Amino acid sequence: MQIDILTLFPEMFEGVFGQSILKKATENGAVNYHVVNFREFADNKHQTVDDYPYGGGAGMVLKPQPIFDAVAHLKSEARTDRPRVILMCPQGKRHDQKLAEELAKEEHLIFICGHYEGYDERIREHLITDEISIGDFVLTGGELGAMVVTDSVVRLLPGVLGNEESHMRDSFSTGVLEHPHYTRPAEFRGMKVPDVLLSGNHRLIDEWRAKESLRRTFDRRPDLLEDIELTVQQKGWITEFEKERK
Amino acid sequence: MQIDILTLFPEMFEGVFGQSILKKATENGAVNYHVVNFREFADNKHQTVDDYPYGGGAGMVLKPQPIFDAVAHLKSEARTDRPRVILMCPQGKRHDQKLAEELAKEEHLIFICGHYEGYDERIREHLITDEISIGDFVLTGGELGAMVVTDSVVRLLPGVLGNEESHMRDSFSTGVLEHPHYTRPAEFRGMKVPDVLLSGNHRLIDEWRAKESLRRTFDRRPDLLEDIELTVQQKGWITEFEKERK
Repeated sequence: MQIDILTLFPEMFEGVFGQSILKKATENGAVNYHVVNFREFADNKHQTVDDYPYGGGAGMVLKPQPIFDAVAHLKSEARTDRPRVILMCPQGKRHDQKLAEELAKEEHLIFICGHYEGYDERIREHLITDEISIGDFVLTGGELGAMVVTDSVVRLLPGVLGNEESHMRDSFSTGVLEHPHYTRPAEFRGMKVPDVLLSGNHRLIDEWRAKESLRRTFDRRPDLLEDIELTVQQKGWITEFEKERK
Repeated sequence: MQIDILTLFPEMFEGVFGQSILKKATENGAVNYHVVNFREFADNKHQTVDDYPYGGGAGMVLKPQPIFDAVAHLKSEARTDRPRVILMCPQGKRHDQKLAEELAKEEHLIFICGHYEGYDERIREHLITDEISIGDFVLTGGELGAMVVTDSVVRLLPGVLGNEESHMRDSFSTGVLEHPHYTRPAEFRGMKVPDVLLSGNHRLIDEWRAKESLRRTFDRRPDLLEDIELTVQQKGWITEFEKERK
């Protein structure tokens, strides 16, 4: 997969793309990152990328020309058809695991990251294929969002995750939240691991985990339960949790 | 504000904390970042920070000792009372602008970032004050989430944002999404700026912007409209949008 990032702050990406899984994914050929400063594409003498808004108001607006030309250049360089051209923006579609899985099937993603400026609307209307938001909060720019989406996508590419790292996928792939985990020591400064986990009885351990997963989902994210079909045992547990709550 | 980050990948933070607003905020004294590798606090010979899960299963679990001791150390170093100790975790409370505003009032935040391992449940039960998630997607670790929360908080601290940068705050502070922006040229490769913005008539421009803000919110985030009280004019526009949709 080819991942291109258009940003005015390319240095922000070095530490993140150069570590851990995102780095490993380049080393084994699953992905190639190309972080591009779109200021290089500005066709004016001073390499200006933003300008005052028509109609007045505070703040600057990113001009269409540098971004249109940067995207055209990246498309011409790529051996792929039809990249997804993604604008990171608080008004976009909320990112989630389903969208990560969809994007992981693509060959080429181009992320456009604005940085406290707004975008000229013509970029939105005529250049991009997707607008993505990572949540209802305001960030300084699209860079962190692009890193988040990239991480969520790249770890799904074939061959990127080893067994050891695949672990945390549980939370959103089974429909319920993960059960609690414990490791040694069995007692740490007076705080104990539940007896059942030390019992060696795997039927009981599996049952405890399934129940605690459900309890955590019931407590924290009851909305997730609407999307799964509950077994008779799970329904019984939920009745139990409801009683405990009273 | 003091922001401490506990992570096994401190290099990930350099590019992000060393650029733009997050950097400027340290330069003007609004915030001090301290990124700490909690492996340094492991009291065993091999500086191990994780171990196999009790009860079996794939994946490793972060041991309580290094993280408890790292947090104790950071607390003892700080001149503040009661820091917020935040676990980044997909099961946590969903981050939003309201939570960013709440955290911006604190003196001291400590973020704990796991990295593909799970956390020993005793950390969750006995050490932390908050669990925060940035969304329903799986990331390799808590690091990107900690950066996102940090950015959303630090930009709210007094004196951090200049006028130029305050612009993008609009989207979640007025209750509706931002209107479209345009800048020069008035015509770019056949794509034109709406006439009204070139008219110089500020009453009409303000009205166009208010209407387009509402239209965008109606189209993309109707849920936001439930939380605001609509004016008579806004109600009329919504009737209009509803007719256009049919």
